[in-house]
Amino acid sequence: MSIETVPKTSRAAVLTAHGEPLEIRELPIPTELEPGALLVKIEAATVCGSDLHLWDGSLAGSQALSLPVIPGHEMVGSVVRIGEGAERDTFGQPLRAGDRICFTHASCNQCEHCRLDNQPTLCANRQYYMFTSCAEAPYLVGGFAEYCYVFPNSGRVKVPDEVPTEWASAASCALRTVVHSFDRIGRLNPWETVVIQGSGPLGLFATALADHLGAERVITIGAPEDRLKIATSFGATDIVSIADAPEPRDRIDAVRGLLGGRGADVVFEFSGARTAFTEGLGMIKEGGRYMVTGQIDGPGKEVPVRPGFITRQQLTIMGTWSGHIAEYRKALQFMRNTRRRYDFGTLVPHRYPLEQATEALTRMRAQQDIKPVLVPHATAAQVST
Amino acid sequence: MSIETVPKTSRAAVLTAHGEPLEIRELPIPTELEPGALLVKIEAATVCGSDLHLWDGSLAGSQALSLPVIPGHEMVGSVVRIGEGAERDTFGQPLRAGDRICFTHASCNQCEHCRLDNQPTLCANRQYYMFTSCAEAPYLVGGFAEYCYVFPNSGRVKVPDEVPTEWASAASCALRTVVHSFDRIGRLNPWETVVIQGSGPLGLFATALADHLGAERVITIGAPEDRLKIATSFGATDIVSIADAPEPRDRIDAVRGLLGGRGADVVFEFSGARTAFTEGLGMIKEGGRYMVTGQIDGPGKEVPVRPGFITRQQLTIMGTWSGHIAEYRKALQFMRNTRRRYDFGTLVPHRYPLEQATEALTRMRAQQDIKPVLVPHATAAQVST
Amino acid sequence: MSIETVPKTSRAAVLTAHGEPLEIRELPIPTELEPGALLVKIEAATVCGSDLHLWDGSLAGSQALSLPVIPGHEMVGSVVRIGEGAERDTFGQPLRAGDRICFTHASCNQCEHCRLDNQPTLCANRQYYMFTSCAEAPYLVGGFAEYCYVFPNSGRVKVPDEVPTEWASAASCALRTVVHSFDRIGRLNPWETVVIQGSGPLGLFATALADHLGAERVITIGAPEDRLKIATSFGATDIVSIADAPEPRDRIDAVRGLLGGRGADVVFEFSGARTAFTEGLGMIKEGGRYMVTGQIDGPGKEVPVRPGFITRQQLTIMGTWSGHIAEYRKALQFMRNTRRRYDFGTLVPHRYPLEQATEALTRMRAQQDIKPVLVPHATAAQVST
Amino acid sequence: MSIETVPKTSRAAVLTAHGEPLEIRELPIPTELEPGALLVKIEAATVCGSDLHLWDGSLAGSQALSLPVIPGHEMVGSVVRIGEGAERDTFGQPLRAGDRICFTHASCNQCEHCRLDNQPTLCANRQYYMFTSCAEAPYLVGGFAEYCYVFPNSGRVKVPDEVPTEWASAASCALRTVVHSFDRIGRLNPWETVVIQGSGPLGLFATALADHLGAERVITIGAPEDRLKIATSFGATDIVSIADAPEPRDRIDAVRGLLGGRGADVVFEFSGARTAFTEGLGMIKEGGRYMVTGQIDGPGKEVPVRPGFITRQQLTIMGTWSGHIAEYRKALQFMRNTRRRYDFGTLVPHRYPLEQATEALTRMRAQQDIKPVLVPHATAAQVST
Repeated sequence: MSIETVPKTSRAAVLTAHGEPLEIRELPIPTELEPGALLVKIEAATVCGSDLHLWDGSLAGSQALSLPVIPGHEMVGSVVRIGEGAERDTFGQPLRAGDRICFTHASCNQCEHCRLDNQPTLCANRQYYMFTSCAEAPYLVGGFAEYCYVFPNSGRVKVPDEVPTEWASAASCALRTVVHSFDRIGRLNPWETVVIQGSGPLGLFATALADHLGAERVITIGAPEDRLKIATSFGATDIVSIADAPEPRDRIDAVRGLLGGRGADVVFEFSGARTAFTEGLGMIKEGGRYMVTGQIDGPGKEVPVRPGFITRQQLTIMGTWSGHIAEYRKALQFMRNTRRRYDFGTLVPHRYPLEQATEALTRMRAQQDIKPVLVPHATAAQVST
Repeated sequence: MSIETVPKTSRAAVLTAHGEPLEIRELPIPTELEPGALLVKIEAATVCGSDLHLWDGSLAGSQALSLPVIPGHEMVGSVVRIGEGAERDTFGQPLRAGDRICFTHASCNQCEHCRLDNQPTLCANRQYYMFTSCAEAPYLVGGFAEYCYVFPNSGRVKVPDEVPTEWASAASCALRTVVHSFDRIGRLNPWETVVIQGSGPLGLFATALADHLGAERVITIGAPEDRLKIATSFGATDIVSIADAPEPRDRIDAVRGLLGGRGADVVFEFSGARTAFTEGLGMIKEGGRYMVTGQIDGPGKEVPVRPGFITRQQLTIMGTWSGHIAEYRKALQFMRNTRRRYDFGTLVPHRYPLEQATEALTRMRAQQDIKPVLVPHATAAQVST
Repeated sequence: MSIETVPKTSRAAVLTAHGEPLEIRELPIPTELEPGALLVKIEAATVCGSDLHLWDGSLAGSQALSLPVIPGHEMVGSVVRIGEGAERDTFGQPLRAGDRICFTHASCNQCEHCRLDNQPTLCANRQYYMFTSCAEAPYLVGGFAEYCYVFPNSGRVKVPDEVPTEWASAASCALRTVVHSFDRIGRLNPWETVVIQGSGPLGLFATALADHLGAERVITIGAPEDRLKIATSFGATDIVSIADAPEPRDRIDAVRGLLGGRGADVVFEFSGARTAFTEGLGMIKEGGRYMVTGQIDGPGKEVPVRPGFITRQQLTIMGTWSGHIAEYRKALQFMRNTRRRYDFGTLVPHRYPLEQATEALTRMRAQQDIKPVLVPHATAAQVST
Repeated sequence: MSIETVPKTSRAAVLTAHGEPLEIRELPIPTELEPGALLVKIEAATVCGSDLHLWDGSLAGSQALSLPVIPGHEMVGSVVRIGEGAERDTFGQPLRAGDRICFTHASCNQCEHCRLDNQPTLCANRQYYMFTSCAEAPYLVGGFAEYCYVFPNSGRVKVPDEVPTEWASAASCALRTVVHSFDRIGRLNPWETVVIQGSGPLGLFATALADHLGAERVITIGAPEDRLKIATSFGATDIVSIADAPEPRDRIDAVRGLLGGRGADVVFEFSGARTAFTEGLGMIKEGGRYMVTGQIDGPGKEVPVRPGFITRQQLTIMGTWSGHIAEYRKALQFMRNTRRRYDFGTLVPHRYPLEQATEALTRMRAQQDIKPVLVPHATAAQVST
């Protein structure tokens, strides 16, 4: 079912070589959809740290990719074509022309992780946006483009009317990952203390969520100053600035100082920093919980750990990455419910047209922008308003 | 209340210098008991790996001890004197002359770990047997002696009649630690696969418990041959012999080979080996659970770990040590319930009189004895029968 | 894809009026399969209590059905035709001609229960076998027939080679429901006591599962004598015979007598008896758990309960019904793993050809057969061997 | 250790006959304290619904009491005498003259519920304030008196400086019970909807706690108007007034109307009303959770329930009552942390001297006062200021 007039081609910002500027190309828009697939117009594509790492080639697996690819996996699309059997979102809501949706990478729905464990993010057969060559059909499989093909197996959820498009885009990777981490670490009680390592988008979303869940203390560690201000506005009871505490030992001391010499009940790692893991272990209370989300795996990524410390302190250490469609929905519900309390617009302040995609990446890398928003259908003049 | 005729002094095998033979000394038996305290006659004191490490000085904190101390913290005593208010065990069972009991190190019962978290093993104020100088009253605070003073705050539980004394002694450190680990790691389902690292007493008890809980596969890794035979008799479905697979990589391959290329749902570390932690991580399935119990903390005990691996595999890693009185009771219940299925007597085959304590330690270190049993009131002639 | 020669019609035992003998009819075999659908040859269809209630019209909703329908929802089929995209089972195992499968009722995969809660048995859009008229395509939607159409949304799992067909059939409703109940009630510890109300197939499977999970005591309540003998062979440590204890109060006293005056840690209701719920509440320990599975809802099904008893005893009461594909798989794994310990063949002793379907129902109702096995492709002579 | 000058006798408001005015009597203040006991000066004793039921004789067990007793079990005392070994509170904080504490009924610390399950509220040997005759030593075992004897086994916790005395008193039964209920029902997610049945002190505290935990919707049901206004100020997103919806069916419809036809994820029963249990079951979503706290057990308290509804809806129903020392502490932490958000002073607006105890009960029964505060050391003139 084709719903509105769709052109034959779509512009896309394409990665042809790691570290090089993205190229604007015209790619075919597929006219045939597989059963279950959708075609969407990208309303906004926010930039995630993984896009940066894909760009510079440091992301695990990115060196083995068959280029060119279209970066971007955190985006909101509005429905323009609907494949057979795709008339509803994953939760049964009818989809119509123009409905805004968020959608997941495509797990296989057939392996043990998809079916038995209810952990589709562990699916070994997952098809990823931004990791699939755009040289072959269906071509448009990344967010930095005017249109995007939604895989049949991609979970999809309608964006609630009350949630702005840019917010929803940020929910579709950053916030849903945070929600997944909180889901897995278990219940947070209002008499528990929380440390959030990192003041990037994940750390800031996590600060808001920990605040909303009523934690007794929420200590956010990060830099630079403007992000720490956002953390405070999101409910951090305390801030540890990396500028003031440049060494891991300083930050451990700062956290323990705030907690009367004790560690925190729960620590979340969202910084991705090399030393963060051992640092975080130093901040946990005996019997505490550590959720490791920001770390990237790969050769040469070892840090020293004392297993006996885990034993003797009776720690619980967990890892989480990505998210599945239930978490997208929960993330959007959280945004809708708390939109008057937390101004998530502060995380997505700047908009860029497609041809400034490279600039968006560059400014994000330089920490001049927290989470740039690509608006592929806008002109430079429009976004600068 | 004094129940039977108690002598004025008790023999004890005393550690006066790390690595030196234990000395047999006569120590005063306290005539006054604090409220809540007990005096027991040691019926059996089994030797734990920690006794070995205390002896050679490698146990964390052992270098800082004020010697002399009486080793031994895994033992069964029969009640001979009862302090005021100590007429019942921790679960309300009346205690009478001659009743056999197991008892815990003495947590303070007043800190957050004791009261709020229900995790008294994390209590910072815990008073330990074998770590308290025997040069001062109450003197008899270790298992390698004819009598032992039971601290007022030590949990205590009557040994069920069906459980032999040597078994109960082994329950009072080794098995209760295993029970604690299983308690904390969460439910084991009959469609889950388990790896047990280590075939010492903890690994063997864990093999039996995993079998009893109905795990689909129980793979025990260890050496030497005679212990692996016990593992098989305790229900291991598969054995990985360190003799056959001397390198960590070999053992990881062996486990994955047994599981069709996958890792195990749950891995337990009970070996204490230096490389075991990273090895165990290599044996877990994505989304799996790792319980680290055998490791000893301290300076220089680091091993390399990739935090991103924890993230990407969505692992859960937990530590557990020691146990509290509920676990002693569960351990004894488990022994009573399964005594016809598992012959735990194979773990405690040899008995020694007090004056052979050093020999018991030596033979255990040389793996000539799994878990020696000291019988302080027996003569050499009696135990050799 | 058609795999073997399939006739144009299939015989089926059809319910045309409640309480009347089933009629043998020839129904068309659909030649076209929807994407995701399968056609299977029924190798065995075991009879479930719900089939009895469907027959006599007492099952909730059965009066509103559009007859005729084909009874039977507990069955094993071997694959004969494979719809587009249905080349693998739900867990990714390839399906080929002749592979035996079990399959679920068809949940919608699109509602909150299917997607958010991971509880597809609560799906309001579920399509049921035996509840769908056989007067319209695809006609063959019940187990009492030579062939069956497997709905596109039905989960399906290959039967392990080691599991006999009759056993697998019994797993596909009775045992998977038991597994679901155990899954939801939470962990069973080897120091916990269990009561199983009911010695029908569910109660007997539950007895075996509780035994396998290592419960300290497994007390099975039921009748008649031959079923109680099976319960004992499945590991019941104690039996309460309804013949000996005909009144609820007697049975409560019997259970408490066996447990030293206390209630059980966990009680499972699998009997379906009118008075069983209040009786079960009388058998639980303070703080205990009650899983209610055997009860059927409907007008006039009230029993008196004291809410303050739930409060004061701090009980947990849960309900469970049916199961989803993960439970089918776990049920089959459990059978495979324990097949040498439990002779589940004792539950399915008698085979019937299709034309004796009414006799099978009649004998089951009279408790002359625990769980009859229909073998639609067999002749009377064949099954009597 | 006696800390300040303590008189020889204490005034107390004593229940001598159910339904009769309380009598002011002078009772001896015990000069000897058992080890572990304390003597406190009552700073405030708030009135609980159970005090009303004790007064009129409808409380379970109250008819069997040996009168006279001193009502009151929800109170704050300041330390005046400290028994041997009672120099610290249950969490290790030192206790000094004048320190304000809350304290629990005295569980035995020796039974399975106290030790194995960590559920001391189920202890069968619990010694209760207000249920113990004041005709014998230690006489002062209820809150409606100038002084109170704290049993050796009563948990006790220091009141944080930031928490007003009247608030802490209300925490020591009402709020700690609510905290216990929330602890047991499990995690509340910000995408879950909550119904609170009842707008008495428990219902209102629960409203605040559900709000603080970030529930998507908090629907409070109750009367009269002024209490519903407090519910709104405590974060109820919706109110169902019993005045507007006098019949259970009306209220069920109102709740389902607010939730788009569905039930709530979690329902809490805090009203104590006769019909509340069946009404609450009508408000739960399939798969939902029901916590029953407000109900009182006893003969004649049956209501009709359909067990098959629990099965088919896969409900979880739990009961909770009272609380243990960990919950007192959590309740006080919650008050301290949220004191600027929730004005709990609205629950305890009126103060009464001891001689107006009967008036306090009368006004509470007539719903003219939510939770009266007795101030035993104040004169009528002082409290009226």
